[in-house]
Amino acid sequence: MTASFLPLADIADAGLQRALQSTLDNKTKPQGSLGRLEALALQLGGILGSTAPVLQAPQMLVFAADHGLAARGVSAFPSDVTWQMVENFLAGGAAVSVLSRQHGIALTVVDCGVRHDFLAGLAPGVGRAGLLVRKVAGAEGGTADAWAGVAMSPLQRDAAMANGRALLADLPGNAVLLGEMGIGNTSAASMLLARLAGLDIAVCTGAGTGLDAEAVLRKATVLREVLERHAQAKAPLDALASFGGLEIATMVGAVQQAAAERRVIVVDGFIATSAVLVAHALDPRVLQRCVFAHRSGERGHEAMLQYLGAQPLLDLGLRLGEGSGAALAWPLLQSACAILRDMASFAAAGVSEKVA
Amino acid sequence: MTASFLPLADIADAGLQRALQSTLDNKTKPQGSLGRLEALALQLGGILGSTAPVLQAPQMLVFAADHGLAARGVSAFPSDVTWQMVENFLAGGAAVSVLSRQHGIALTVVDCGVRHDFLAGLAPGVGRAGLLVRKVAGAEGGTADAWAGVAMSPLQRDAAMANGRALLADLPGNAVLLGEMGIGNTSAASMLLARLAGLDIAVCTGAGTGLDAEAVLRKATVLREVLERHAQAKAPLDALASFGGLEIATMVGAVQQAAAERRVIVVDGFIATSAVLVAHALDPRVLQRCVFAHRSGERGHEAMLQYLGAQPLLDLGLRLGEGSGAALAWPLLQSACAILRDMASFAAAGVSEKVA
Repeated sequence: MTASFLPLADIADAGLQRALQSTLDNKTKPQGSLGRLEALALQLGGILGSTAPVLQAPQMLVFAADHGLAARGVSAFPSDVTWQMVENFLAGGAAVSVLSRQHGIALTVVDCGVRHDFLAGLAPGVGRAGLLVRKVAGAEGGTADAWAGVAMSPLQRDAAMANGRALLADLPGNAVLLGEMGIGNTSAASMLLARLAGLDIAVCTGAGTGLDAEAVLRKATVLREVLERHAQAKAPLDALASFGGLEIATMVGAVQQAAAERRVIVVDGFIATSAVLVAHALDPRVLQRCVFAHRSGERGHEAMLQYLGAQPLLDLGLRLGEGSGAALAWPLLQSACAILRDMASFAAAGVSEKVA
Repeated sequence: MTASFLPLADIADAGLQRALQSTLDNKTKPQGSLGRLEALALQLGGILGSTAPVLQAPQMLVFAADHGLAARGVSAFPSDVTWQMVENFLAGGAAVSVLSRQHGIALTVVDCGVRHDFLAGLAPGVGRAGLLVRKVAGAEGGTADAWAGVAMSPLQRDAAMANGRALLADLPGNAVLLGEMGIGNTSAASMLLARLAGLDIAVCTGAGTGLDAEAVLRKATVLREVLERHAQAKAPLDALASFGGLEIATMVGAVQQAAAERRVIVVDGFIATSAVLVAHALDPRVLQRCVFAHRSGERGHEAMLQYLGAQPLLDLGLRLGEGSGAALAWPLLQSACAILRDMASFAAAGVSEKVA
């Protein structure tokens, strides 16, 4: 259970913070002139505990699952697209595949509850490269329909979170990038936002993969009904079980474990941030380890980021998910570390300092 | 002379634009879901004339020069920092050095008029790796003091622009990134903006390398006087000669040549954009070839971008110059091309299309 996790330590003590700031301020540039990149460098140095941080073996995890609620017409695409896109990830043809390859990021898809058997026809015990099967709702199952009952049982939720923690603990490297795939999962994220941040569902509901304005209104109506049916699900883990999804629950566990291990956590868009929202409700210090890759074009993400006090790196109107925004932001993290490690100091370069 | 340049052709004909849009729309993602990256992909495909564009041998050019006006206290750093930073670029210790190395971008510093002899002690005809000496104002000289007279003569301006065109024509690859170094050069850029966009100098004047609020006011007062002394310098090339600088004039020529050769032009911050501002006044179609890397923290850049109708990629509060923002944005250009080239189509990946 989550409650057994010890509270997280603050990532950087005062001495390390001072050393990092001093290292930055002695680099050959006007102080503060690299803007947001300097704050990022301080954060990454804090997480990795070094004034010369090195990001190692970055791991993109794409958590995938299906949503019972999708049958109620909350998405522009059919549920089959979830498994089809997982195959596309594995074949290397999706945006996150292309972008991860560009940056040398290892990509693993985690089947947290896709309504498809990716191992059909294979001998028992044989797996597929780049795929971890971590289903908790039966061989076939995604979440149940949250309109009719809870999306997952407390046992399923805890099992999914435990899966997230366990698979994270087995990863190499010191940085993870969190992406996802699941037709219907903006609905789950919108409801988590409405419930945990206390916002009206109308301001939390967006177009997802591309609903028109009228369909967004219908979606919000459905979500409002689901929220009313689970009016008592106020605690973060109750809300998670009520609204789903299995990929979000697994991601919550991954965030907890990565935070405990002081890994850098690169958070993609609306869905990945909703997992951080839940993990934050359980221990706010997870945020110290999180780098928010971008401000999504999905309605609700801005409110979610504001609620968390998070400042994202990119603002490109992305609304694809998968981890695509996290991959796009990744070189900025490498740059921030390179600035700390490789730039010359004023003294070493013989450059005069500020006079006025 | 500039006037002899033929007007630029539009970069993409209707057929190519349709082919690019269709290629993007058949990729396995909801249409438009990669936001600003999709517009970038269309632009790069248009410039390079291909639905599968490949960026080749990117070249970072750092144009450096000194400014006579710097003696009037418009900068927080002494003029010696210009040559000291050029040495830092050549030694690989500056931000733009580190970031260019990170991304495999070749870096060349162009001495357009730094008050320093970088070849002192070398045999005649011997150069230095990564440095092009293209001085036009004598062996020692930057611009003259624009408060007392024109910053450069029309002959010097034309020679600098011709240098920019010639050196660009000799570069390999199909993409250039434009950066600069020159203590005092935010002053020149601010005056070019005020004059060419018809704005009050107060809204065009910022902190540069780090002036405090009072010093910014003094700087604006000096610049207002310089603008008044050159009240007749309304034509773009007259303004360029009046206000400087030599690095900006050389960059204007580089922009013209790169545009004529249909190279991708990645524009860094306030100073680099001011060169585009002048080139745009001579032929607006240069903008079709320009990718604006970021919105600088320097006051005036936002107004300059708005005047040009330019939408930058990053918004990180950078105010360093050098080309650092262009280097930081570079992977996004590579990503945009990779999306066009390497993503699977719906049909090829067997993914269902939108239903709602």
